Amino acid sequence: MKIALDAMGGDFAPASTVEGAIGAINEYQDLSVILVGDETKIKKELDERDCSNLPVSIRHASQTVEMDDSPLSALRHKKDSSIRIAIDIVKSNDADAMVSAGNSGVVMATALYVLGKLPGVERPAIATVMPSLKDHFVLLDAGANVDCKPLHLYQFAIMGEAYASFIFENDNPRVGLLSIGEEDAKGNELTKESFKLIKNSSVNFIGNIEGQDIFSGEADVVVCDGFVGNIALKVSEGLAETIAVMLKREIMEKAASAGKEGALLIKEAFANLKKRTDYSEYGGAPLLGISKPCIISHGRSTAKAIKNAIKVAGVFHKKRILDVISKEFNEGLSRREIIVASEK
Amino acid sequence: MKIALDAMGGDFAPASTVEGAIGAINEYQDLSVILVGDETKIKKELDERDCSNLPVSIRHASQTVEMDDSPLSALRHKKDSSIRIAIDIVKSNDADAMVSAGNSGVVMATALYVLGKLPGVERPAIATVMPSLKDHFVLLDAGANVDCKPLHLYQFAIMGEAYASFIFENDNPRVGLLSIGEEDAKGNELTKESFKLIKNSSVNFIGNIEGQDIFSGEADVVVCDGFVGNIALKVSEGLAETIAVMLKREIMEKAASAGKEGALLIKEAFANLKKRTDYSEYGGAPLLGISKPCIISHGRSTAKAIKNAIKVAGVFHKKRILDVISKEFNEGLSRREIIVASEK
Repeated sequence: MKIALDAMGGDFAPASTVEGAIGAINEYQDLSVILVGDETKIKKELDERDCSNLPVSIRHASQTVEMDDSPLSALRHKKDSSIRIAIDIVKSNDADAMVSAGNSGVVMATALYVLGKLPGVERPAIATVMPSLKDHFVLLDAGANVDCKPLHLYQFAIMGEAYASFIFENDNPRVGLLSIGEEDAKGNELTKESFKLIKNSSVNFIGNIEGQDIFSGEADVVVCDGFVGNIALKVSEGLAETIAVMLKREIMEKAASAGKEGALLIKEAFANLKKRTDYSEYGGAPLLGISKPCIISHGRSTAKAIKNAIKVAGVFHKKRILDVISKEFNEGLSRREIIVASEK
Repeated sequence: MKIALDAMGGDFAPASTVEGAIGAINEYQDLSVILVGDETKIKKELDERDCSNLPVSIRHASQTVEMDDSPLSALRHKKDSSIRIAIDIVKSNDADAMVSAGNSGVVMATALYVLGKLPGVERPAIATVMPSLKDHFVLLDAGANVDCKPLHLYQFAIMGEAYASFIFENDNPRVGLLSIGEEDAKGNELTKESFKLIKNSSVNFIGNIEGQDIFSGEADVVVCDGFVGNIALKVSEGLAETIAVMLKREIMEKAASAGKEGALLIKEAFANLKKRTDYSEYGGAPLLGISKPCIISHGRSTAKAIKNAIKVAGVFHKKRILDVISKEFNEGLSRREIIVASEK
C-alpha cells in the first residue's frame, strides 16, 4: 500500500511529517510513503534519520499552501503545491491514499476538483473521531460544508454509519442527529427536516441527541451541519485545554503544601487523560464522499498524529470503505428512500 | 425590591426554591420574594425552616408546567401555572422581576405573550454567563430562538454589550461573533451577513471568534444563533462532566498507591475548579429583550443556583439594564445603523 503524504502540511512540518512517515513504516506492514514537498528540506530531515533502506521516496513540489490561502486562490495559483501534487498522485493511481495536515479547506477543494465525488454523493463531509465515556464516536460534518440541506445531513448519516461500522468494528452503529432537544419535533428547520429523512431510511437512527449527551457514548455517529460540527469540535478542544490549565493552576497553588506522591499522582492522571482525549491518538479525519481516500490531520499534528493519520488512510484503503459507501449510493437506496420519505 | 419566584420550577423544587429564596433574603438587602405555586407544598417547606419574620409570601397556582409541556399547550391549557402567575404578577407591577428554573421554552413563550418585547427588539435572547481563563463571558443566544436572521444577531450584539457592561462593570466590553474562521469572510451565510451589520455599527466588535477561543477570554460577549449557542453551551457542560468523570476514574485507579495528601490535594483542586465552572455560581440567565426582567435558571438548579438567580434579577432591576437596552433601540440607533450598513 502506498500513501502520498503532504510533507509540508502542519505547524511542525516537515520534521513531523518525515518522522511520522518513518514511524508508520516501522509499525505497519506493506507500507510505502511518497513524501511530497520541498525536496531539499525533506532530504535534510531524512538525512538526519537512518532510513536508507526504508520504502520512502520524495516527490518534489515547488509550492507550499499557507494556512491563510483561500481554496480558490490555491487552486488557481498553486498548481505545484505539495497538497495538489499529493492529490494528483492519487488521481493517477500512483498512490492509494493521501494524507495532509495542511490547510483543510484547500485539501477539500482540491480533492473535490481533482478527484471528484463518489456517484450520488451531494457533498463530502469531514468525519472526526472523538472520545466518549464508553469509547469513541464519529462526528460529521466537522467543517467541510456550511449551510447544509436536509439531503446532505441524510447522506452524512449513511456515510457516517458505513465509516463507523468499519473503524469501530460494529455491525450496527447507532446514529444520532445533533439537536437542541430530544423530542422528534425539536430543533431548527434543518434538523427537523433531516430527522424525517433519516427516520424513514434504513439508517440505525436513535433520534436527536443533545450537546451534553454526545460524550456519554449513546451514539456512535453524530450527524450535523459543518458549521455546527466545527463549533462543537472546537469548543470541545478549547474547553479541554481550559480545564487542564485551570486544574494545573489549582494544583500549583497547592503544590507547596502537598507531598511528592500527590503531585506524581496528578501528573499521571493527567497524562492518561491526555492520551484518552488527545486528537493525535486518532490522527486523521477522512473526507467522506470523495472518490479516493483523502485524510486530513490537525494543523498542530505531531509526528505521532501523522503516523496515526497514515494508519487511518491504510484502514480506509484496505477495508474498501469507499466501495461500501459507493454501493449504498449506486444502488439508489438513498434516493429511493428520500422519495418514499417525501411522499409521507 | 420584590421578586416573583416560580416555586415549582426545577428538578428539586419546591425545596430548592424555598431554600434559595430564604438564602437570598438573608444575603441581600431590601428584598422580598413571592413564592408562586402549590400553596400546601410551599407552606410545608416554609414550616420546616424558621422564616416567620422573613419577607416571603405565597401566591397559590393550581397548575405546574412539566418539562415536556410545549409552549403552545402551556399557554392554552395552563393559565394557572406557577410560571404564568409569576409572569402575571410582574405584568401587574406587583413584582419587579420573575425567576424560574422551570421549562425555559414555556417561560420564554409566556413572557413574550404576557409582557411583550421592548420596542424595536425583533427577538429576545437568553444571555448565559460562562467562565473563561481570564474571567467570564456572556454567550447569547443560548437557545431562545433558532433559525435567526442577521438582524437578530446584530441586535443580540447590542443587547449583549449593554448587559455585559453592567454585570462585568466594564465600559467597553469586546463583542465577538462565533464562527468557524477568524477571517472576516469565513463562516456561514448567517454569520457573514451578521458580521457586516455588526462591523458597521457602534458595537465594540472584535470580529469572528472560533469555538476554541471563547474560553480564552478574548471576548466578553459571544454572539450566535440560538441553535448554535445551545449546542456550544450543552457540549461544554457535557464535556466538563465527562472530563471530571474520566479524571476521577484515573485517580481512583491510582488511589491505592497514593498517599492521603495526594488524594486530598486532588479533591480540593476539583472542588475549586467546580466552583469556578459551576453554573450555580452564576445562577440565572436573563431573557434579554423582554419588556420586564425575566431570569431563567438551570433545570437542575440547587438552592444556591436559585439564590444567585434572584441576585441576577436584583441587579437587572436595580441597574435598569432594560432601560439602557430600550434607549439603544428607541433612539433608532440600531435601525439607522442597519440602513447605513445595507447601503454600503
